[in-house]
Amino acid sequence: MIYKKTIEKNSESQIEFIDITQDVDDIVKESKIQNGQVLVFSPHSTAGIAINENESLLIQDFQRLLYKLVPVEERYSHDLFELKRTTRSDGRSNGHSHCKDLLIGASEVIPVADGKPMLGGHQNIFFIEMDGARKRDIVVQVMGE
Amino acid sequence: MIYKKTIEKNSESQIEFIDITQDVDDIVKESKIQNGQVLVFSPHSTAGIAINENESLLIQDFQRLLYKLVPVEERYSHDLFELKRTTRSDGRSNGHSHCKDLLIGASEVIPVADGKPMLGGHQNIFFIEMDGARKRDIVVQVMGE
Amino acid sequence: MIYKKTIEKNSESQIEFIDITQDVDDIVKESKIQNGQVLVFSPHSTAGIAINENESLLIQDFQRLLYKLVPVEERYSHDLFELKRTTRSDGRSNGHSHCKDLLIGASEVIPVADGKPMLGGHQNIFFIEMDGARKRDIVVQVMGE
Repeated sequence: MIYKKTIEKNSESQIEFIDITQDVDDIVKESKIQNGQVLVFSPHSTAGIAINENESLLIQDFQRLLYKLVPVEERYSHDLFELKRTTRSDGRSNGHSHCKDLLIGASEVIPVADGKPMLGGHQNIFFIEMDGARKRDIVVQVMGE
Repeated sequence: MIYKKTIEKNSESQIEFIDITQDVDDIVKESKIQNGQVLVFSPHSTAGIAINENESLLIQDFQRLLYKLVPVEERYSHDLFELKRTTRSDGRSNGHSHCKDLLIGASEVIPVADGKPMLGGHQNIFFIEMDGARKRDIVVQVMGE
Repeated sequence: MIYKKTIEKNSESQIEFIDITQDVDDIVKESKIQNGQVLVFSPHSTAGIAINENESLLIQDFQRLLYKLVPVEERYSHDLFELKRTTRSDGRSNGHSHCKDLLIGASEVIPVADGKPMLGGHQNIFFIEMDGARKRDIVVQVMGE
């Protein structure tokens, strides 16, 4: 059996960790699949998926880490391209956002048992916005029996 | 067909690369699944899964890289939270462990053919402890036919 | 249903982003699977898989990021091992390549709907060579119905 749903989220800042654990739980429940896996996928190249603990101070650490490894103030060649792209006229450069996304990745797969994602007690599923604020999609797909 | 097993490992140091290739091989064999895929999932937020070569000097390089990108001696806001958490009274700070885990990720999926994970000759599956020493779980799930 | 194919690519430089989106699209089409997922897997420990935008200036940013986070000129213990390995006599050190690969990861999973990978408009699938030039394999596996 395969069950798929696309959810929408609105990010409100440049880098934002949006907890989608409850959304994923609900979709797994709706799917009626008891055993299998759930794939969480970001169809964006400046926003990804990761699993970690939802603790507000820790999320500040994550943001600091992403800014430290990929500083906004460095020069990114991609920003020259963005300036010329007609579909984007706000002058905002997002080379750094793509670079951060390269480190985060587009997907996570979580095993499902007894109709629930087998997340550990300190695990939450995050959609990580790295070029907000925007309206974004996330694909959640459950496969199993 | 779906076959799932949770294995236990004891880590012995703060950052440790535990080779679980043989465990995953055995579980795929037990599953009797010939074609499909195996999902290896860490249900922890300070320990992840990665695939690379098991060469002891290289593992030192990996450890050095993780300490360099996410230094233990920097300040992590999460450590203030940990100090107040009643379930953790050893005073050990693990903000850096969560940050390292963000870069590693919780899962890897490996194709299975002829009843074996299709790993390359220089690939091993690692459970990466980043906040040891501890007893840890790893979920291994095989799907296919 | 499960459909699997191994494709071959020749990398031409040390770090190279090879766009395999069309190959993956073709394999999904060949599989006749309408709904499910496609697993893209690198059976190598110095080459991985990531999804991002194929824009030539941005790819320069990605390369620069990988060289910055894991500099070639640092010392890697693994290089001592490589010097002694009989199967490798070109004297080239690749400790840095393995370290870069640890950050990129071996696999990505993409949902499939209506017989196509559900990639966003700015997403391409890259095989990332980090120890080229070489002939390389990539495993593409479609599961679904």
